[in-house]
Amino acid sequence: MSFLPFAIEVGALNACFFAERGFNVELFESREDIRRAEVVKGRSINLALSHRGRQALKQVGMEDKIVSQGIPMNSRMIHSLNGKQSPIPYGKKGQVKAETYPNTKLNFDHKLLDWRAETGRMTFARSDGSKEQINADLIVGCDGAFSAIRKQFLRRSRFDYSQTYIPHGYMELTMPPIDGEFAMKPNYLHIWPRNTFMMIALPNLDKTFTCTLFMPFDEFEKITTGDEVIDFFQKYFPDAIPLIGVDALKTDYFRLPGQAMVSIKCSPYHIEDKCVLMGDAAHAVVPFYGQGMNAGFEDCIVFGEILDQLNNDFSAVLPEYSRVRVPDDHAIADLAMYNYIEMRAHVNSKWFIFRKHVDNFLHFLMPSTIVPLYTMVTFTRTRYHEAVDRWHWQDKVINRGLLLSATAALLGGSYLLIKNPPDISKLIRPAEKMWDGLVALCNPRALARI
Amino acid sequence: MSFLPFAIEVGALNACFFAERGFNVELFESREDIRRAEVVKGRSINLALSHRGRQALKQVGMEDKIVSQGIPMNSRMIHSLNGKQSPIPYGKKGQVKAETYPNTKLNFDHKLLDWRAETGRMTFARSDGSKEQINADLIVGCDGAFSAIRKQFLRRSRFDYSQTYIPHGYMELTMPPIDGEFAMKPNYLHIWPRNTFMMIALPNLDKTFTCTLFMPFDEFEKITTGDEVIDFFQKYFPDAIPLIGVDALKTDYFRLPGQAMVSIKCSPYHIEDKCVLMGDAAHAVVPFYGQGMNAGFEDCIVFGEILDQLNNDFSAVLPEYSRVRVPDDHAIADLAMYNYIEMRAHVNSKWFIFRKHVDNFLHFLMPSTIVPLYTMVTFTRTRYHEAVDRWHWQDKVINRGLLLSATAALLGGSYLLIKNPPDISKLIRPAEKMWDGLVALCNPRALARI
Repeated sequence: MSFLPFAIEVGALNACFFAERGFNVELFESREDIRRAEVVKGRSINLALSHRGRQALKQVGMEDKIVSQGIPMNSRMIHSLNGKQSPIPYGKKGQVKAETYPNTKLNFDHKLLDWRAETGRMTFARSDGSKEQINADLIVGCDGAFSAIRKQFLRRSRFDYSQTYIPHGYMELTMPPIDGEFAMKPNYLHIWPRNTFMMIALPNLDKTFTCTLFMPFDEFEKITTGDEVIDFFQKYFPDAIPLIGVDALKTDYFRLPGQAMVSIKCSPYHIEDKCVLMGDAAHAVVPFYGQGMNAGFEDCIVFGEILDQLNNDFSAVLPEYSRVRVPDDHAIADLAMYNYIEMRAHVNSKWFIFRKHVDNFLHFLMPSTIVPLYTMVTFTRTRYHEAVDRWHWQDKVINRGLLLSATAALLGGSYLLIKNPPDISKLIRPAEKMWDGLVALCNPRALARI
Repeated sequence: MSFLPFAIEVGALNACFFAERGFNVELFESREDIRRAEVVKGRSINLALSHRGRQALKQVGMEDKIVSQGIPMNSRMIHSLNGKQSPIPYGKKGQVKAETYPNTKLNFDHKLLDWRAETGRMTFARSDGSKEQINADLIVGCDGAFSAIRKQFLRRSRFDYSQTYIPHGYMELTMPPIDGEFAMKPNYLHIWPRNTFMMIALPNLDKTFTCTLFMPFDEFEKITTGDEVIDFFQKYFPDAIPLIGVDALKTDYFRLPGQAMVSIKCSPYHIEDKCVLMGDAAHAVVPFYGQGMNAGFEDCIVFGEILDQLNNDFSAVLPEYSRVRVPDDHAIADLAMYNYIEMRAHVNSKWFIFRKHVDNFLHFLMPSTIVPLYTMVTFTRTRYHEAVDRWHWQDKVINRGLLLSATAALLGGSYLLIKNPPDISKLIRPAEKMWDGLVALCNPRALARI
């Protein structure tokens, strides 16, 4: 018998994975039953479900059910300052948004006070003041970025941990329906890009939109009155004012302060054969790659695969899970942070835009050799850290190819012999021919080698 | 009135800095009075005191007292595998080792249970089971790498924190005196370098040496019997066996397992105007640059300077201290980790050794323009992060100089015009002429610009 305390989402999905394998599963949630509670506003960024997440749901037969409850988003809609809207499609495959998940056996109103790795004993507090003790064979901590389970990890030696807050905060504002219908086109992720800050809007099932404003904390703090809110929106998001409503805007802005966003990495994910961290408890990411929930769902697939490989022997499964999964989760945390930092710095650089065009052109020419990073991350199950390695490799090859072409052009067509193509031997396989091909472009002698 | 709970070393020094400025200072230490306690073996790496630390001691008139209690070490002594000893001097200035520090007003046996940022109230536990509550205007947390004060920081939003353990552990072994005298020459840091692991020995006042063995944890764990310890020493440190003693070695090795080493960085160092972290509580570093204690002592100087600048107004002093000090402490933590990681990888590289020679030669030619990193860190009070910036700059300039020289040689003396010396305009001042000088070496036209 095995008890698994965890919260909603990754926890609920994990419960299905374990239950399907014949384990007895018990879930513990500190809050009251959220199915009966009022909707908590302003605290949760809507979640994007893409390929990895869907694969996980598929394995427990929930894909169709969840996807049907979400609102499909196949395009982004860019709102420019003058109110013009321009759709930009996402690509071949679809993305969908989902908010609620079914789950199997849940104990609500159980707040974890402490637990012991030696015994697997957990102590919970109930809202009536009572305490409850429960022993588990395996404790799966899916209790979010501020995990109570993880506190025990921090008390032990040789546990690597980092938490990094970004200078931006976020704030959620609600855009109500107009005449019972969505105020804007629903099947889009609406984006108002404004350099150092931006607003996005995602559709909900009740025909409202949740608008999320991302902005540096010091900008949030500059706005102190309702009139200043309106002035600010007038300057940057004038088309959103009538849709949200002047009065709502003036009050909603001050309901909660800007919320912090944190990136958390740690290693290892397990303590002996007793406890393992998954989801945001193991790897909270900033929400700029849309992979937070997908990475958490993929955790369940990977853990399930290792359970099968190692015959459910927790003492072997847990270290193996840490070994396999840590580099991938660290890679996606880094990518999300990279998108936050670098995209803002690069997005206006001519070289960056030129390189995007080159990448897309090469992907068109050689679809299996050059794959844009975003495609690998969002539409495949390529391991995150391999996607990053391959991205770096492609970058190097393409930059060198461009350099070589430029040099060849410069030398007026004279031959160029590259004796030791640097590093290539260490790099990844399928695209290895690529370099030779590029060399051959300017060196007919190399053709003999191909 | 102001109470400051903190532990030994940085805490004691800080107490002097505050006391000199007229604050009422109270120190709290969780252990019993260590002046009366037995020496705790095997848990403390000996501490190296260099320029920054001495400057801090000087400001409270303690330099001579402390230095006279330490044992000066002016050289390293390298023990090769065949037992040959080769001294390598440290440079112009002296370094000294010290172990004990006087302190002013101490409350021992006060273990911090909790504290509140709103009120400055701390709750301590005493060994007789009683509790004690104390209010302070300012709480200075100098309570080490595993700081109890810092726990409160971790519960707050927007506190960046990272702890990274390295794969090496350390173990301390004692080398007793022979006929009442040191078993090896005392005024040296003795080093047995052995690639992936090494042993060092530092002299103590009681004529013993403390030998510290640094080794990956999995190597420690491979040795499970007394005979295996002797075999291991026979293979790598044969000259140390008779000096430590066969029987002592067989038992001492198993007294404690290999001890972990952690690098800790965080930001900010303060909570409102109530609490500030200093020393290892703010920035534990791995012990491979000999700057851990010196950085902690320099914290006291920097805080003192800011107190003076801002008239002891804690609400202004604390944020300013975080702003000024965080980048420097992060730089020294990174440098210590760099020494751990990179030196082992580079130490046998021909380019690395060649560059060391070039650097030393350029320092000889232009002592105020090119200063080796080690010299800036150990023998000056150049801000750590500026030392790192300048080091990167020097590196770039020297590498480019070498590249230019090589290119010039290759082109058989033909002129080379560098139209846009890249990045130089953004770089640091005094050595700016350097680049022009190097260009001039191979481009007489540029001479007109100098």
